[in-house]
Amino acid sequence: MNNKNKLIYEGKAKKVYSHEDANKVIIEFKDDATAFNSLKKAKFEGKGKLNCQISARIFELLIEKKIPTHYLELKNENTMIAQKIEVIPLEIVLRNTAYGSLCKQTTIKSGTDFVKPLIDIYLKDDELNDPLITIDRIELMNIISLKDLDLIIDLTLKINAILKPFFAHIRLKLVDFKLEFGYDLKKNILLCDEISPDNCRFWDLNQKNDMIVSLDKDRFRNDLGGLIEAYSEINRRINDFI
Amino acid sequence: MNNKNKLIYEGKAKKVYSHEDANKVIIEFKDDATAFNSLKKAKFEGKGKLNCQISARIFELLIEKKIPTHYLELKNENTMIAQKIEVIPLEIVLRNTAYGSLCKQTTIKSGTDFVKPLIDIYLKDDELNDPLITIDRIELMNIISLKDLDLIIDLTLKINAILKPFFAHIRLKLVDFKLEFGYDLKKNILLCDEISPDNCRFWDLNQKNDMIVSLDKDRFRNDLGGLIEAYSEINRRINDFI
Repeated sequence: MNNKNKLIYEGKAKKVYSHEDANKVIIEFKDDATAFNSLKKAKFEGKGKLNCQISARIFELLIEKKIPTHYLELKNENTMIAQKIEVIPLEIVLRNTAYGSLCKQTTIKSGTDFVKPLIDIYLKDDELNDPLITIDRIELMNIISLKDLDLIIDLTLKINAILKPFFAHIRLKLVDFKLEFGYDLKKNILLCDEISPDNCRFWDLNQKNDMIVSLDKDRFRNDLGGLIEAYSEINRRINDFI
Repeated sequence: MNNKNKLIYEGKAKKVYSHEDANKVIIEFKDDATAFNSLKKAKFEGKGKLNCQISARIFELLIEKKIPTHYLELKNENTMIAQKIEVIPLEIVLRNTAYGSLCKQTTIKSGTDFVKPLIDIYLKDDELNDPLITIDRIELMNIISLKDLDLIIDLTLKINAILKPFFAHIRLKLVDFKLEFGYDLKKNILLCDEISPDNCRFWDLNQKNDMIVSLDKDRFRNDLGGLIEAYSEINRRINDFI
């Protein structure tokens, strides 16, 4: 960064800086990891670079498949240039397999594969602890029109239809993932944030037995160790394939 | 109860006994009060009788308006006879005004009156702490068909359209209420459980200022005192009107 790039926003895992072009921003991926709404925190050297590289590759793949995203180009190892957007304060979680919080809030058995993916929507609000939210509640809060919400859900399903087989090819089961969307200056809806092992659950399909081997942030959440090794493995498999 | 009436089920606020007629049950209303999923408990002498009387009057009113309910008749002061049903493990909450947990889980301001009532559905599961649940999650858990769920939501809206003006006539604001439904032996959907200050929020409209005066279980939840006085007042106003 130089003096002209001002810090606009600092999140848990990324910093956003202004760009000389007012339509663009610079996103720096940090090495920090947080879980359980920041109750658990740590730093993993190299995580920022890995997530930046992985996200860039996945955004490129999605753009190729006509998904509108904020991604423009890599600036350096842990920094990308993206379109400036106004973030919609919703987290769209798509689940192909039941795991994690879902199984604590329902009677659905952990590991159940869904015929049709489940979409859960959470309010992006740290103070409220990112609660699960219904469509009726979204409507009452005037966060987004139901038309735009439909559009976002439709995009999420399309992204899953691209990513699930892509990851299966590199022997990764895409268990679930969390997406964020925003409006560009012309009010188009774009996929934003990142697509990385921080917000996707990946299970290694190269296991000879039925054991779940997580190659994602669950290594940190559940104290499994080997986070950087797991993220590096994801990055390696993506680069070997693309 | 006599020896022939066997205890079938004991809940937090009611006991259900068998009836000589296998299609019926006897429901005894207890004096126990619980809140916050039983973290808070107390006994209020006379609460059982009051809730039994209030529920009976409200069920009679709803039956008159063609709402199918499990209620058959009062047996004595704190006991009613009802149809035997299989309870659907969902709690349907209708909110006319934002209050309570809703305002802790959203950015909606406490006291906001809704133009269109909000319906929130919770899974009736003490172990899971009765979590909020989406329609998609209900579908995945195979709790109920979407057709029957629509029917229940429709009944809930109809019940509100009857009760909201009824309570307004007796100078009570019906803030929100929680309903439970079940299937009778012929698989018809019936309103069950109770309709009382235990599961409805009533605010006194006979206040000259803007102060909220709760005449419901919030007196216990929020340590406001005067629970029996509040429930007696609700019972008195209903009986004066009907």
